[in-house]
Amino acid sequence: MNNLFAAPTEKLAEEMTEILAQGRHSRIERILSTGHVSAEGFWYDQDRHEWVALLKGAARLRFEDEAVELRAGDQMVIPAHRRHRVEWTTPDEPTIWLAVFYD
Amino acid sequence: MNNLFAAPTEKLAEEMTEILAQGRHSRIERILSTGHVSAEGFWYDQDRHEWVALLKGAARLRFEDEAVELRAGDQMVIPAHRRHRVEWTTPDEPTIWLAVFYD
Repeated sequence: MNNLFAAPTEKLAEEMTEILAQGRHSRIERILSTGHVSAEGFWYDQDRHEWVALLKGAARLRFEDEAVELRAGDQMVIPAHRRHRVEWTTPDEPTIWLAVFYD
Repeated sequence: MNNLFAAPTEKLAEEMTEILAQGRHSRIERILSTGHVSAEGFWYDQDRHEWVALLKGAARLRFEDEAVELRAGDQMVIPAHRRHRVEWTTPDEPTIWLAVFYD
């Protein structure tokens, strides 16, 4: 059993994604970022809804119409096909995301 | 946007469940316990799988063949129809559960 709050002590070369559970219509992921952001010009445009929460760290999601800052404990739903990108994650500590993709 | 770590300062009369997101085949819940346990003799026997995590506090789940202690950050999958009950949650602080029910 991996602890959700376990975080790397060093900067990761790349964002790290771990699948925690998976069903026919959903997938639960834990994502670790250490200052990572979406590639320039890249936007997520997903077929599934996404519930996303920040367990630790800080991040900013960019949508076409707004930006949303997330701190530890913040959570939101990103409906399917709402385009978004990760514009910023703090370089000061690891950021731990929890994401559930669902129909 | 409600913070996942927000917890009551007083003992709750009953366990409190909040639906954070819901799709056709899944439901994400946050559950607050302040020393609550399952009613005597009651066992959950669910049609859906459950991924459950403890964000804060401490708890013990009882299965027919084992007991599992959970601390903050611990997480596990309870397959559909694996009978279980909440045998203990700490009376010392609020326990915050995150649960995803899925097919």
